[in-house]
Amino acid sequence: MVKNEWGNSIYPLVPGHEIVGEVTEIGCKVQKFKVGDRVGVGCMVGSCHSCDNCINNLENYCPKMIFTYGTKYYDGAVTHGGYSNTMVVDEHFVVSIPENLPLDATAPLLCAGITVYSPLRFYGLDKPGLRVGVVGLGGLGHLAVKFAKAMGTNVTVISTSPSKQKEALENLGADSFLVSRDQDQLQAAIGTLDGIIDTVSAQHPLLPLLGLLKSHGKLVILGIPGKPFELQVFPLIQGRKLIGGSMIGGMKETQEMINFAAEHNIKTDIEVIAMDYVNTAMDRLLKGDVKYRFVIDIGNTLMPSS
Amino acid sequence: MVKNEWGNSIYPLVPGHEIVGEVTEIGCKVQKFKVGDRVGVGCMVGSCHSCDNCINNLENYCPKMIFTYGTKYYDGAVTHGGYSNTMVVDEHFVVSIPENLPLDATAPLLCAGITVYSPLRFYGLDKPGLRVGVVGLGGLGHLAVKFAKAMGTNVTVISTSPSKQKEALENLGADSFLVSRDQDQLQAAIGTLDGIIDTVSAQHPLLPLLGLLKSHGKLVILGIPGKPFELQVFPLIQGRKLIGGSMIGGMKETQEMINFAAEHNIKTDIEVIAMDYVNTAMDRLLKGDVKYRFVIDIGNTLMPSS
Repeated sequence: MVKNEWGNSIYPLVPGHEIVGEVTEIGCKVQKFKVGDRVGVGCMVGSCHSCDNCINNLENYCPKMIFTYGTKYYDGAVTHGGYSNTMVVDEHFVVSIPENLPLDATAPLLCAGITVYSPLRFYGLDKPGLRVGVVGLGGLGHLAVKFAKAMGTNVTVISTSPSKQKEALENLGADSFLVSRDQDQLQAAIGTLDGIIDTVSAQHPLLPLLGLLKSHGKLVILGIPGKPFELQVFPLIQGRKLIGGSMIGGMKETQEMINFAAEHNIKTDIEVIAMDYVNTAMDRLLKGDVKYRFVIDIGNTLMPSS
Repeated sequence: MVKNEWGNSIYPLVPGHEIVGEVTEIGCKVQKFKVGDRVGVGCMVGSCHSCDNCINNLENYCPKMIFTYGTKYYDGAVTHGGYSNTMVVDEHFVVSIPENLPLDATAPLLCAGITVYSPLRFYGLDKPGLRVGVVGLGGLGHLAVKFAKAMGTNVTVISTSPSKQKEALENLGADSFLVSRDQDQLQAAIGTLDGIIDTVSAQHPLLPLLGLLKSHGKLVILGIPGKPFELQVFPLIQGRKLIGGSMIGGMKETQEMINFAAEHNIKTDIEVIAMDYVNTAMDRLLKGDVKYRFVIDIGNTLMPSS
């Protein structure tokens, strides 16, 4: 979004979703929250509330959905995210954060967390005993491992970097690890997975991933590479496999995800930084040098601009 | 298969599935059939009977499934299809054909029919009121229209040939017709379909088809082009759409499909030919010059070779 790589950025652009804080003031019609409540805001702050998707608690797929930053709000002003000491939000797009969850390590659940939680549920990859692969071990991937484990599945992390094996197995609790460039390992794992959550945004081949799936297996793609994938349909047909996508989640499901995280003690692995560190953080992010999400301590480090 | 375009043909190859006839003799352990029964055989004549797929009546996805022609049978001999006055088949792979269905127009249901029926059921595109697109109006496509209509859905035929409109609407009973090369028609139909059954084997772009789907819509691919498709994942993610495949159907579902056809009076549109017409028929088939399936009258026209 900062560099307009998807071609839809509106400048000046102030990024920042995955926002947490306390309610400081409420409007006269607010019913869900009171002053002092611990709350969060994710990727969206508005929708039409009348289309089929909105009626089915899928505001995230509403054609008029308003992103937390970089989209025109109802009044025509462009939304400017959460890099601010205060924020005004429609209560419908605010979730409650249970007391046992720390605010900072919960913030990234509001985008990264729901982005992996929702497809695990929707594609039925949430049943104990199922074998789920997670491709890529970044902000999304490490949460996919945690949620999939908490749902009772057997998790295989699939990565190009053999160096991530210890991290995946010992720190994140994955059951097995597969180096995606190792043909012997790939061969041995053919037809073993019920589903794969693919979090990688870089260009990569889909055919080996489809090969890892059992018949009727599901490959869920969450990252958007700059170029189209090459799709061989033979495995889809011969094994009735499918390739699907998913984008964040509706507000009802986002609250459900936060409650599930509270119940299973799921937190994001984060590095808390000060506001004036953001440019360095961006450089490190592009190099994959963070485990796994930077969280900016706005409250203590955002200085008045004048 | 005749020209080895998929690279797996075993010569000498005798093609021919979608086989119908009467039982002339039964083995001592046969329970489902008696002499004189009207029966059919589809694409497969064997499977392992013990894997997860076999146990779940999905013999079609058994890794050891044996095709009716061109595959090694249990005894190592290559199967040689149904271009024969008699055929010996395991009763498990034989379906019963109800009295009200003509044998000849039922034969193609055993491959083409089940190939479109099974994904309509599996992908949930079988509910009255749903809007289903059918791409391509050949052997598979014309049956997809008939089955989808009989299930109560609203059917749109999508074709490159405006000349097929009358046929689709008047003869096959489709509700609407869309010329896939007409940008205005495509634009007007964006986001209107719950699912698409894509029967085209030739190379064609998927992006316009994904655009025709509503959010959560399903694109089911049944044809296998020689080259990979180009897959843009943005519509999959933004609309939680999926691309899936399907290959024929299990024996239980094949019988169910035949019974459904009997109940709803679904027949294949066929042209019955004599055995010595097959080479001409192949030429015409490649030009799309048949409505919609050739059926060979083996019983009356197959001459002894000596």
